[in-house]
Order: sequence, then C-alpha cells, then structure tokens
Amino acid sequence: MTRLPIIIDTDPGIDDAMMLTLAFANRETLDVRLVTTCSGNISQDKTNYNARSFLSYIGADVEIARGLEQPMFRELEVAEDIHGESGFGNVQFPAPTLPVSKRPAVTAMLETIMASDEKITIVATGPLTNVAALLLAHPEVKPKIERISWMGGAAVGGNMSPTAEFNAYVDPHAVEIVFRSGVPVVMSGLDVTHKAFVTIDEAKSILNIGTEFAEKAYHLVTYYLDVIKRTSFHEENYDQVLHFHDVCAVMYLLKPEFFEGQDCFVEVALEGLAAGATVVDYTNRSGKTPNVHVLHSVNRKAFVAEFVKAVKVISERLQ
Amino acid sequence: MTRLPIIIDTDPGIDDAMMLTLAFANRETLDVRLVTTCSGNISQDKTNYNARSFLSYIGADVEIARGLEQPMFRELEVAEDIHGESGFGNVQFPAPTLPVSKRPAVTAMLETIMASDEKITIVATGPLTNVAALLLAHPEVKPKIERISWMGGAAVGGNMSPTAEFNAYVDPHAVEIVFRSGVPVVMSGLDVTHKAFVTIDEAKSILNIGTEFAEKAYHLVTYYLDVIKRTSFHEENYDQVLHFHDVCAVMYLLKPEFFEGQDCFVEVALEGLAAGATVVDYTNRSGKTPNVHVLHSVNRKAFVAEFVKAVKVISERLQ
Amino acid sequence: MTRLPIIIDTDPGIDDAMMLTLAFANRETLDVRLVTTCSGNISQDKTNYNARSFLSYIGADVEIARGLEQPMFRELEVAEDIHGESGFGNVQFPAPTLPVSKRPAVTAMLETIMASDEKITIVATGPLTNVAALLLAHPEVKPKIERISWMGGAAVGGNMSPTAEFNAYVDPHAVEIVFRSGVPVVMSGLDVTHKAFVTIDEAKSILNIGTEFAEKAYHLVTYYLDVIKRTSFHEENYDQVLHFHDVCAVMYLLKPEFFEGQDCFVEVALEGLAAGATVVDYTNRSGKTPNVHVLHSVNRKAFVAEFVKAVKVISERLQ
Amino acid sequence: MTRLPIIIDTDPGIDDAMMLTLAFANRETLDVRLVTTCSGNISQDKTNYNARSFLSYIGADVEIARGLEQPMFRELEVAEDIHGESGFGNVQFPAPTLPVSKRPAVTAMLETIMASDEKITIVATGPLTNVAALLLAHPEVKPKIERISWMGGAAVGGNMSPTAEFNAYVDPHAVEIVFRSGVPVVMSGLDVTHKAFVTIDEAKSILNIGTEFAEKAYHLVTYYLDVIKRTSFHEENYDQVLHFHDVCAVMYLLKPEFFEGQDCFVEVALEGLAAGATVVDYTNRSGKTPNVHVLHSVNRKAFVAEFVKAVKVISERLQ
Ligand SMILES: [Ca+2]
Ligand SMILES: [Ca+2]
Ligand SMILES: [Ca+2]
Ligand SMILES: [Ca+2]
Repeated sequence: MTRLPIIIDTDPGIDDAMMLTLAFANRETLDVRLVTTCSGNISQDKTNYNARSFLSYIGADVEIARGLEQPMFRELEVAEDIHGESGFGNVQFPAPTLPVSKRPAVTAMLETIMASDEKITIVATGPLTNVAALLLAHPEVKPKIERISWMGGAAVGGNMSPTAEFNAYVDPHAVEIVFRSGVPVVMSGLDVTHKAFVTIDEAKSILNIGTEFAEKAYHLVTYYLDVIKRTSFHEENYDQVLHFHDVCAVMYLLKPEFFEGQDCFVEVALEGLAAGATVVDYTNRSGKTPNVHVLHSVNRKAFVAEFVKAVKVISERLQ
Repeated sequence: MTRLPIIIDTDPGIDDAMMLTLAFANRETLDVRLVTTCSGNISQDKTNYNARSFLSYIGADVEIARGLEQPMFRELEVAEDIHGESGFGNVQFPAPTLPVSKRPAVTAMLETIMASDEKITIVATGPLTNVAALLLAHPEVKPKIERISWMGGAAVGGNMSPTAEFNAYVDPHAVEIVFRSGVPVVMSGLDVTHKAFVTIDEAKSILNIGTEFAEKAYHLVTYYLDVIKRTSFHEENYDQVLHFHDVCAVMYLLKPEFFEGQDCFVEVALEGLAAGATVVDYTNRSGKTPNVHVLHSVNRKAFVAEFVKAVKVISERLQ
Repeated sequence: MTRLPIIIDTDPGIDDAMMLTLAFANRETLDVRLVTTCSGNISQDKTNYNARSFLSYIGADVEIARGLEQPMFRELEVAEDIHGESGFGNVQFPAPTLPVSKRPAVTAMLETIMASDEKITIVATGPLTNVAALLLAHPEVKPKIERISWMGGAAVGGNMSPTAEFNAYVDPHAVEIVFRSGVPVVMSGLDVTHKAFVTIDEAKSILNIGTEFAEKAYHLVTYYLDVIKRTSFHEENYDQVLHFHDVCAVMYLLKPEFFEGQDCFVEVALEGLAAGATVVDYTNRSGKTPNVHVLHSVNRKAFVAEFVKAVKVISERLQ
Repeated sequence: MTRLPIIIDTDPGIDDAMMLTLAFANRETLDVRLVTTCSGNISQDKTNYNARSFLSYIGADVEIARGLEQPMFRELEVAEDIHGESGFGNVQFPAPTLPVSKRPAVTAMLETIMASDEKITIVATGPLTNVAALLLAHPEVKPKIERISWMGGAAVGGNMSPTAEFNAYVDPHAVEIVFRSGVPVVMSGLDVTHKAFVTIDEAKSILNIGTEFAEKAYHLVTYYLDVIKRTSFHEENYDQVLHFHDVCAVMYLLKPEFFEGQDCFVEVALEGLAAGATVVDYTNRSGKTPNVHVLHSVNRKAFVAEFVKAVKVISERLQ
C-alpha cells in the first residue's frame, strides 16, 4: 500500500499535539516528510520548541523547520490564556532531541515539494501564514500539491471574535490567499469541529490506557475544561466537552468517510471589526464557483474511537 | 393602569403583520400613537400600503406615516422571494381605509415624541433607517425615548448573508447610529428569534380558532414553510417551524419575564463582505461598556400561547 | 432686483468670519434667512458663540441656530492649533447680542426651506453634518434647494491628512450623503482655494482702510501666518500667503464668472487611512455621471478686490 | 573602485527601458547581478519579453528571471493605453537573444542575495509584488539587503486614480509589506518624478546624438506626448514634458546628491476607493517613526544631462 506524502504545518498547542499523535500513530498510511511550525496560539519560539519536544517524546523522526514569526499584515496576538504559558497547559515534556532544521519553513516546503515525485498533501492546523507565503512567492508548487487540509474558519459564529475563528482571525490575508490559490482546500471549521468532541467520560478511556503517554494526553485534553467558559450564546455543552479541532484536519485524510461537507464559495473579511470571518456562501447566493470543501458533519463515535486507538498505538510504541 | 405609549416602525411583511396583531390585540397595555413604515423586505410603496391595508383590516385607528425610501448608505435590496411579491405571501387584504399621513415619518416621530408628556417607547421591526435618521438629525428627542425594542441582528450567524441578519444587512449604518445613540436598546436578534418558533401543529391551533382572520393569520405564517430552505449549516428544524422574528420586539414589552438576555457591547460591520454583522461582544473581550441588551432565550410555550391569544382577541373584535 | 435666499452653515473660525463678512456686505444680493452652526474647527459651543458674537459685531440681524455636536460616525477632532483657542486667533469680539435660536439647526433649516416660496441656496463652510442630517431625515426638502455651495474637499492633496481636506476629514459620511443627494453641489476644494489667496501686501490694503473692523479683519487673516508651517510637499508660497478657503463658497454665488470648474463624479473614502479623501474623477475613468461641480481656477485679483470691497462696506456700515 | 551590486525588478514599459539604459550605461558603478520582471504596465509575458529584447539590444549580459503574474490581492489591471500594446509605443526591438532564466524571480532573488558576500541593493520600478513576496516568504534576506530604491507612490495626488500612483495602485499590499519590512526604502514618488522631466527641446538633444539607439530612445520618450492628456487638476506643463519616473530610482543610486528628500512615516491604503494611496505623513502628525525616505526635489538640469550621457554611452558601446 502506498503511503500519502504529507507536510504538517502546526502551532502546538494542545490540540495540535493531539493532531500530531493521530498523524504519527498512522505512519503506515501517512508519510510525514516535513513538519513546519507557525506562529499563532503562542510565539514561533514556543511552537517550534513544542513541536520538537512533543515529537521527540513520541519518537517521531522528522525534519522540523521554523516558520514565519508574524502574520502577513496583522499584529500577532497569542492565546496563552487558552493553552497555558508553555502551550501545553500543565503537562511537561522533556527537552527536545530533534533539532531545528537549517532550512527555514518556506524553503523547506518549497524544496520538499519540488523534490517529490508524487503530489504532496499539506495539513495545516494553525494560521496559514507559512502556506500562504509559499503559494504566493512560489506558485510553481501549486500543481504539485494534492490538497490542503486546514483546521480553521467557521461558517457560523466564531471563537476568537464573535465572527471569527482563531486561526482565521490571526492571519485572514493568508486564508484568503490559500482559498484563492486554485489548490484544493478542505476546511475543518468550527461547524464540524464543534461536533468532533469528546466527553469527559470518553476522555477517561484515554486515561485508562494506563501508560505515561496516555496520562499526559488525558491531562492535555482536560486542561481546556478549566479555562473554557460558556456563555448563553454558545451551544449548551460548550464547556463540558473537549473539542478536538485540529485533529479533524488529519482524521479527514485517514477517514474521509467519517465526514460530510459541501463545496462552497468562501471569502474572508480582511479588515475591520469582522476581520477573520470566513464568509461561507452555503446557499450559493453569490453564484460564484466553490473554492473550498467545507466540512459540516462528523461521525463522532467513530472519530473518538479512532483517536483513542491512536493514543494506544503511540503508547505501545513507546513501551 | 397606565398604558405604555409606543411608536411602531415596521416593514410589513408577514412577521411584521404578526407583530402588529400582537401589538393591537393588547391595546389596554400598549398605546400605539404612530405607525411608520420603513423600506426593507419590500419597497416603501408596498410596506406603507401593506401597513395601511393590514391595520385597516384589523380595525386599528392610527396614523400611518411614510418613511424613508433608501438605506443611509447602501443600495436597497428587497426580499420578495421570502415574503412574496405583495409582502403577504398568498394572503389578500382589502384596500386600505386608513390614509397615508400628511407628515413624513421622521417629522411625525419628532412631533409625536416632543408633544408627549411621557417618554415614548419605539418598536422597530425592520431596517433602522427612520429611527436612525430621527436620532441623528434631532438628538433633542433622546431624553424623551424610553427604549428602542428592535428585531434585528445576531450574535451568531445570519440569515441574509452568513454573517448578517436581514434588517441589519439592509442598513448597517442605521443600526450603528442607534446602538451608539445612548438610548436604551433591546435587541431581539436571531439568537432569540430562532428560539421563538411555532411548530406546524401549534400553528394549526391558530387555524382552529375558526375565524376569517385566524385563517388568514394561519396562511401567512405557513407561507414561509414553502420558501425557506435549510442547509447543513442551519439548525436542524430550521425549515420545519415558523420563526416569529418580529413578534419578539413587541412581546418583550408585554412580557419581559418570558425572555432572558445579557448587556453587551455591540458594534456593526459597516462595509465589505461582512457588512451588517452585529458583532456582539458576549465575552466582554473588548472591556467596553455594554450599549445593547441582547436577548438570547425565551420561554417558547408561553410565547406561543400569548400569540395565539392575540389572534383570538383580534378575531373576536372583528366579529 | 430679486435677492438670492440663502442659509449659511458655518463653524467660525477665522475664514468663516471672512466668509460672513462677504455675505453680509452683499445684502442687496444675498438674503440670509438663517445661520446655523456646525462643529468642526472648534466645538459647537464655540462655533455658535462665535457666529453670534461676530454677526452681532457686524450688525447682522439673523436667526442663529445651534447645530449638531458630533460628526455622523467619526469622533470630533477640533483644530484649535490653527484657529486659536477661541477660534478667532488673537482677535476679540464683544459678547453677542444675537440670541441662540429656540429651534435646533436641522428643524430651523427644515422649516425655513419648507416655508419659502422660492428655492433656497445653502452655503456650507464647515463639515457637512447639519446639511447631511437634513437631507437624510427630510428628503422632502430636496426639490426646494437650489444648490449647495460648499467649501471642502480636494481633488489633489489635503490639509488635514495628506489625502483629506479638513471639512471632509471631520465628517466624510456627511459629504458622501450630500454628494449623492441629487441636489446640485458646487465644491470649492483646496484645488481652487489654494489659488484664492491674498498676499501680505494685499492684506495691508485691508489694514489701510483704517477702521476698527478692518484692523480686526487684518489681524484675523494674518494670524494664520504665524501658525501655518510649510513642508517640501506643499506649494512654494504655502506659508507666505493667506488662503481664503471659506470665502470662495460665497464668492461663487456673487461672482460665478470669477471661477472655472468641471462637472465630475466624486466619491468619498469613508473609512481607514484615507478617510475624508474626496476622490474626484477628473479624467472620468469611471464613466459615472458627474454629481459635483468642482471648481479649480479663480481670477485671484478680482477675488481679492471684491473681498477688500466687502470689508469697506461693513466698515462704513459700522461708522 | 568597488561596484554596487544590484538586482533590478522592472516591468518594461517605456520609462523602465530608460531606467535600464541608465543602469547599464554605468556598469563601472553598478554591478547588475539579476533582472526580474514584474507584472504591471503590461502582462508578465510582455514585460519579460520586453526586458529580454531591450537588454539583448543594448548588449547587456544578465540573467532575466520571470516574476509573479498577479498582484497579491487585487486583480491585475494593465495600462496598455499609456505604453502601447507592446509596451514600447511605436518602437520595435529585435527578438531577444537573452533567454528566460530557469529560476523563477523570487527563487533567483533569494539565491542571488544569499550567495552574495556583500549586501545587495534592489531597484524596483514596477509594482512591488516580487519584492514583497521575497521579503514575506524569506525574511532571512533582510539583513543582506542594503536598500530598496523604488519608483512609485505619491505624497500628493496620483496618476492612476486621483489618490494613487500606478505602481502603488496595482499592488498596494506589496507596497505596505515592503514599507513595513525594516529594510531601508527610498521612494521616488510622483512628488519628485514630476520634477524629473525632460522638455521636448532637451529630448531633441537625444535625437541629435545621431545613432540608431538614440533615435529609438527619442521615439520612446516622445511617444508619451501623444497619449498623455492634461486636465485642469494637473500641473500646467503636465502634457508638454516627458516625466522620467523610473529613471529616478537608478539615478538616486548613481547621484544621490541630485536629490532631496525627507524621512517620513508612510502607510498605504489597502482597500476601497483610495486603494494604493501612499499616505506620507510629511508633517509627522502621527508621531510614528519614519520608515521611508521620500524624495521630493531634484536638480533637473543635472538629471537630464546625466541621462543624455547614458544614451551616448550605450550608443558608443553599440557602434
Ligand atoms: Ca493549532
Ligand atoms: Ca420586519
Ligand atoms: Ca469653516
Ligand atoms: Ca515601470
């Protein structure tokens, strides 16, 4: 069986770590050729360190390149209140053994893609700055990208501002560049990620795996519960379950049959009060040609089971 | 018992007619001193005609003044696909006996308010053009306005564009002027109006009243069912129930105890893709002083019962 | 000979005072039915006081109504560095004998226009807030307005920001409403007002009239010279001459033959960095129908002579 | 004497050809390591072809890399009405002998800069898309760039729209990225280029050189005279002289003593009516730290003489 060659662009971050868990647990299916770090939840220094420390811990052997420091036009706003100062809540990982690549992220992506015989799939679970810079400066890569699977955006509502999801809010211009690029894009926005949750009871089944890694994974995912606050404008269980936002972007590659979506024309509000709103024309009022496959539904039980399995796989690998 | 003096600004339209039904059924409580028509769902010619024809039919005796033709800055977009060409779906009312007032709407509002000994409450269930023009040109009315109860906006999602509710979309500048005016505002946005629905079975209890008016009311409200289309981004029952958007703005005055809300700072996106988004800072990230009381919950059963009662009251009055 | 009935909307301010001098010196030609004050150079309290004190001093007998306090959407920024704290530089006028009208400005304008048998011309030499509020809230006045002669805007450059003239910068939305209103507009922007200057030697001919009023007028107009600073991006004589900006708006009514202009489509940048830029499509790239007559040239010698004559007329009247 | 290593980014275009003439006439001073073509006046296909054909004709031996096709966010608008369909008016050059580089422009710039021991100076005389993409995707080049000398922008007025110069109008986001980059920037905007003109009589001294190249140069520069139209909002001699816009960007490197300028904070209007306005804070109202050296004056006679000399040098070289 042929493995899917992918590049992962990430800003760990708790749910980025869960996403990496799923990706590296499935190494017979996914061939991760490069990990690049983006700035977003926390600064580039921290996301790159965290990526290296988490991936070192789970025994991944992969090049980890440092990405851009700043969004394209906006000032960086970090979300340390949500992810803890370190980005991993209260959980500690040992110092990384994996080094920082000598290649900056955009150069590493460019060279990885151009050197590949097969088309590359990009998974992105942070602001799209690195990916957009690549597409903008080096459009020659476009025919060699199979698809971009991105966690971000929302057709309805937001979590950073009332109309914007965090990753889109941080760098809306990057999202717009990616959406306009002509490369196929799958968007796992809040519409689907809010349905991709794990209950506390289900999370305990992770703890029950009984390994050190499983325990760390459990504490990572339950850290959110202490910091997320629900308002009357949120869905009712908003603060009682664990949303696995970033995990969706990899799960979709492994198990597309778990998801349902719709091809839509999506445009991004770049400036002003609603900056970062990914305006999904789900009724096709505009009549414009769809440019994004927007996921809206997920088989939650199957999703959770698959994730728990990944924690087990990594756990066993680490024994 | 002292009656609440009110001015109603409306663009009938089906749910505006339901709102007027509730208002005029409660004439012991509400003293409607003036009705003004705004442009929005349909043109000013039609909203003014419809207000007069509907109010003539239900026996209301009130001055009906013609309002502004156009939003403050945007081009008028009418929604005849939703309300039918006439604005009343397939239901016919006789030609109006009530005349068009000689006073234009803003002048009539100005003079009505300045002539009143008591503070006036404004109910607005369309785009806020008339009300905003009044406040902007004649700020001397502000201390004489008790409150503005407006149906419009949304903290989450939209119905005209993915991020904008219809009334806010039509004239976002007017909404912003009203929100900044310093006059107390209660916003019945989609957050609450999507919970203020009537099921088809409940609607049949209107039909069962057995009068001509009840039959017309039933056909008005069920007309929506044929034209509303649900997508996967809508709530599940979106196309199977009747949302009584405009009715909320009057119901709140009659039965505030049916509702729950939150004081929030709200700002409106004026331009661009997300124009008309009423950005409700429900987590108070901005730290700004709340300027709008945003409703988010309603006692639906009590709401429906109260509305059915209003249809009965009007029905009896017409026998 | 029939006199031209006009309303003057002004924010005195030094060059507003010069404009009022010209207007009231020509009372056989101009029938000033109302003066309204706008906020701009300085606050409404001061512009209204100044209008009353200056007009009392020059013996004008006219209703002076208080206008709106704030621009339509933007925060008020006053320019006391240019006009001095009082608005009249170092020149003092006695306390006003003319009272504040009981009618607010918009109501006074509305009633004055609707009560007139002839069409009314509006002269506006400040931000257009009052005029825009009138047109917006009471479109029934439009057929009764002959023309609006406004000092403001610029096809090229700016004086408040690099791309915006002061009056347009203060309330760009008001300018846009006026320009779109369908009422004929003549714009005396910086393009022409920078050519309508008086040299210091010419100003001395005002001083040489030898009256108290002439002396005050001289000190008013030369006050600018101490506060205006030239940069290399300004025209060469920018700080060595006295620009009679506001005077143009009245001079054009008296002596249209002194001016040349072009019918252009003009649109106003409402938001952002370039807010207040009056984008004059002088090459008609857009192909849109002209909505403003934009003045660009003036017979400067004749202009100066006419102004000096006005100072003499008022001086003689006051003896 | 050590030569200045430079990269030229250009969209020939008539005045780009004049700029290249000056640059390659001074090869003892300027070491042109790379020419990249940008889209702007005309399409990338044409600018790259024109750069190769003109440089082949004048005997330049240099790598010419193909740049990006489209502005970062806006649609490309080409200006064939000004430059003729070919971009060179009525003048023909033989088919190019210089090839298209195998390296795309951004890659070629990246590798040229990173491979150099000395800092590189960038001359840019078109929209800044290529340069901005380089800086955005590869910030590691910044410490190795000496300066960017750009023709574009305007403190006062515009030539594409009333508030925007052509190169800035085409890709305002690129300009903003370059201005914010921290790399030293010299802006030869319309403020100085409108003073860098050649009269028709002076142009004849080019013709009088008597060579084929001089004749072509003469016909190139005088082609403008037939297509430029003056309005009353332009300076008086606007259509009677030849503005050598692009030439300024190279002349400044050769003869900085010909120019005067001011360090200013400059920001670019990205969206809307005034998009492309380079808002130069020449009075430092904002108090922000200057980020651009904005030229405003030039020793015109010396400038013209230096340019004529360059035509002679190339002419002699081609004999
Ligand atoms: Ca993430
Ligand atoms: Ca309505
Ligand atoms: Ca003024
Ligand atoms: Ca060029």
